[in-house]
Amino acid sequence: MDLALLYSGGKDSSLAALLLDRFYDVELVTAHFGVTDDWEHARRAAESLGFPFDTHELDRSVAEEAVETMRTDGYPRNGIQRVHEHALESVAERDVVAVADGSRRDDRVPSVSRAFAQSLEDRHDVDYLSPLAGFGRSAVDSLVAAELEVEVGPSEEIPKADYEGELRALLTDRHGEGTVAEVFPDHEQTYVRGPVE
Amino acid sequence: MDLALLYSGGKDSSLAALLLDRFYDVELVTAHFGVTDDWEHARRAAESLGFPFDTHELDRSVAEEAVETMRTDGYPRNGIQRVHEHALESVAERDVVAVADGSRRDDRVPSVSRAFAQSLEDRHDVDYLSPLAGFGRSAVDSLVAAELEVEVGPSEEIPKADYEGELRALLTDRHGEGTVAEVFPDHEQTYVRGPVE
Repeated sequence: MDLALLYSGGKDSSLAALLLDRFYDVELVTAHFGVTDDWEHARRAAESLGFPFDTHELDRSVAEEAVETMRTDGYPRNGIQRVHEHALESVAERDVVAVADGSRRDDRVPSVSRAFAQSLEDRHDVDYLSPLAGFGRSAVDSLVAAELEVEVGPSEEIPKADYEGELRALLTDRHGEGTVAEVFPDHEQTYVRGPVE
Repeated sequence: MDLALLYSGGKDSSLAALLLDRFYDVELVTAHFGVTDDWEHARRAAESLGFPFDTHELDRSVAEEAVETMRTDGYPRNGIQRVHEHALESVAERDVVAVADGSRRDDRVPSVSRAFAQSLEDRHDVDYLSPLAGFGRSAVDSLVAAELEVEVGPSEEIPKADYEGELRALLTDRHGEGTVAEVFPDHEQTYVRGPVE
């Protein structure tokens, strides 16, 4: 059964891949807007874990709208949420029986409601899976420590391929560095170097 | 890492075991009140899947209260919910790093809120996992068809070891068959015979 997992190269989506691996033919798919080459970080992480990898280009106008939303809001939540829903809708068009992401129980953004999940499944005739939805932060940390070699650091220094890098780049291009610093608070990111030896 | 999974011998908790198997030393634990020997069905299912098995006796007074709640309500939801929370609290006292159950995304009862999960984790210093929380009915059905040999039928004919059997037995003893029929609507259950050959 072919499954497309939205993949950033970070610990959550990497752990989601390991959870699904027993049951599905998992392809790690990095959705991007063609703004940066950040997806190459995800490709390297996918290779290190031994999963097939592909990119999936999203609609640039969604990114443009998202950064305007983020600038108006002064925080990234709604823009990121819109982009994630668009990515799921778009990847659900692939020739797969299921799409998945790395959402955790304690995630606030992006979050996929039960109603959105059901609607996505009905409209695209796929299953939507969030294999970490039943795992809290502490359990994820334990499993990551046991299974993955990761780098941790501030968002701007860790190579990764979530939407944030491209949205930051777009925001800088349209409104300058100052706006990026206002919209994105400092927080740590992780990048997966491979399985634990 | 030792994990205790609340186990009924049904498809959901069996599938949860397969999902967790890669990451934890999973023990299948059937919680019961000592009212019936239904736990033996779960033991056989656990053996057929090759997992270690144990029983865990719960506080009988919780079952007594639950059947009175169910009789007063005229439906089983609140009684089952109370028993499930008691079972999680009780099993969390075992010498494990994590407890888990087979709750699915679309389950209404029992349901474990994020707040209850966090509280359980904090008070017992364990992780609580619901590995099927991010899987809808269709995905669960696909995985079960691929992985498990199951029997399906009305609740009263399928050998199983969830709380329902014991609560029905208690309710019959206290208030007669008529009350059981009023409280429990007809619905189908599954019982796992083993892995797909």
